[in-house]
Amino acid sequence: MKKFLITGFSGFVGRHFVEYLENSKISAQILGIDLAESSTGRSYAYVSQQFKQIDLLCEQEIERVLLEFQPDYVLHLASCSSVAFSWKNPVLSFHNNMNIFLNLVEAIRNSGLKTRMLSVGSSEAYGNINRDHLPLVEESPLDPVSPYAAARVSQEMMSKVYAEAYGVDLVITRSFNHIGPGQKDIFVISSFAKQIMEIKNNGRKEGVLATGDLEIMRDFLDVRDVVKAYYLLLTKGTKGRVYNVCSGTGCTLREVLDEMAAIAGIEIRTRLNPALVRPSDNKVIIGSNKRIYEELGWSPTITRQQSLEDILNYWGGELV
Amino acid sequence: MKKFLITGFSGFVGRHFVEYLENSKISAQILGIDLAESSTGRSYAYVSQQFKQIDLLCEQEIERVLLEFQPDYVLHLASCSSVAFSWKNPVLSFHNNMNIFLNLVEAIRNSGLKTRMLSVGSSEAYGNINRDHLPLVEESPLDPVSPYAAARVSQEMMSKVYAEAYGVDLVITRSFNHIGPGQKDIFVISSFAKQIMEIKNNGRKEGVLATGDLEIMRDFLDVRDVVKAYYLLLTKGTKGRVYNVCSGTGCTLREVLDEMAAIAGIEIRTRLNPALVRPSDNKVIIGSNKRIYEELGWSPTITRQQSLEDILNYWGGELV
Repeated sequence: MKKFLITGFSGFVGRHFVEYLENSKISAQILGIDLAESSTGRSYAYVSQQFKQIDLLCEQEIERVLLEFQPDYVLHLASCSSVAFSWKNPVLSFHNNMNIFLNLVEAIRNSGLKTRMLSVGSSEAYGNINRDHLPLVEESPLDPVSPYAAARVSQEMMSKVYAEAYGVDLVITRSFNHIGPGQKDIFVISSFAKQIMEIKNNGRKEGVLATGDLEIMRDFLDVRDVVKAYYLLLTKGTKGRVYNVCSGTGCTLREVLDEMAAIAGIEIRTRLNPALVRPSDNKVIIGSNKRIYEELGWSPTITRQQSLEDILNYWGGELV
Repeated sequence: MKKFLITGFSGFVGRHFVEYLENSKISAQILGIDLAESSTGRSYAYVSQQFKQIDLLCEQEIERVLLEFQPDYVLHLASCSSVAFSWKNPVLSFHNNMNIFLNLVEAIRNSGLKTRMLSVGSSEAYGNINRDHLPLVEESPLDPVSPYAAARVSQEMMSKVYAEAYGVDLVITRSFNHIGPGQKDIFVISSFAKQIMEIKNNGRKEGVLATGDLEIMRDFLDVRDVVKAYYLLLTKGTKGRVYNVCSGTGCTLREVLDEMAAIAGIEIRTRLNPALVRPSDNKVIIGSNKRIYEELGWSPTITRQQSLEDILNYWGGELV
């Protein structure tokens, strides 16, 4: 039975990772850690869970946990992942991305354990994208434009140094936009879904949503496909290598909104709220998942229709 | 009279910057800050100096100093610049490079001052170099291979974010190897010079030096040319832009050693000490100074012969 240490355990992706192990009948012992209080949720047949509240900015705490638990795998999900927050407080955002990563990877280096780590990064690393060069492959140039993105590229550079020079066993991702049931409504698709279900549950047939730029196109991947990719990367990825984790296709926010409205059976009109338009956003972000497909056989399995139905159900109870 | 805040003031470059202002008859008020205790040194006619002992890891301290002194220019020299140290303690090295930079630039952003900053970086940012593409120009790819180099690239990325998105007025350097009188003997040329002058001052005509790989070629620039470049970049550089600060020519460590031995009039034999050979070092690093020459008219003025004489004098009193 393998032992997984999961940082940022209280978040959206951590819970789905546990569900993935359970549903795949993979016996596992999990220690979840998070700055926020959390419970381990429901009981499972294949997965045993513990939880500890820990601040990853505290080097001693993470060292102690690592030596006590002696994980085979570390899934490093903890991050301060809001680009908007990084604009408001770049220093705090940087500390809670780069510095916590550094504490963790240094603790692994010093532990003498054979632990393998997944260093989860972000497609934000690509930054300013030349549209002629889509979809983005792992060799595409990185040009971070936000404090959050700069922190992610820093993490990736240091991941490579730790893997290549210190021999720490880690695999690196550039993860594109996740969607799925359980995601907080500070993220755009969840926010749309929540508002649509509020309109529906108020018995109305139509409503108005204030939105940012709906023409931006993103590469959305269901979180249940994301966690499957993370499991494969942790157990079979190539050490020191970067992998895009993405669907390989793009759709606009307007398309997603229209599809969700159709599923919910209501009509949505939109009103542009300039405050929701991000000034330096790329219009189009689409990644290539060729590397992870060819090396590990991973490809997305959940259709967008299924994702959006499940997200709407999450926010509003059963759809009729 | 312009006000300069100089971080890392107790170091080699800070002192030479003050000398440059004085020798150029540039009236200036200087506040030097450093983690280490320091004196302001001798009195000058054109330059007035104060010193404060400050830890740049303390955000509140740097904010207070900035608001009290209200500098026109910030010359950010403070760094933990040893690559070797960064291998031994990557976390501490990172904090004392990237995090102190971040505290400083964030304090400038929040201050509302029109302060212009020089974000001093390193040629280490280039990392693994393709020898077919020498000399290195600012557009050359960055591929940091040490924790120190990764911190420097992080600083550079965040410098660009602060300049482009927040409008903080800063200019960025990639500074190549400095040499000159006053540099500590943890750096290779100073170490050679010190040992040569010890041999000479013991009345011997020959001696043996333990060295690392003497065939590596570097782009050495006299610190007095470096500080002139920094003054020009601070006062006339283009906001948000990166500039190589380098001589534009390379020479091997063996050439430098032979030239110094000749100046001192002694014979040196060398013995390879494997502990001094860095495993992942580039064989050749040469930069192009075309950009800073074309934009600001800067070029090196001190010959290598002059540099080496001054360095030997620094370590051993007057040469005969």
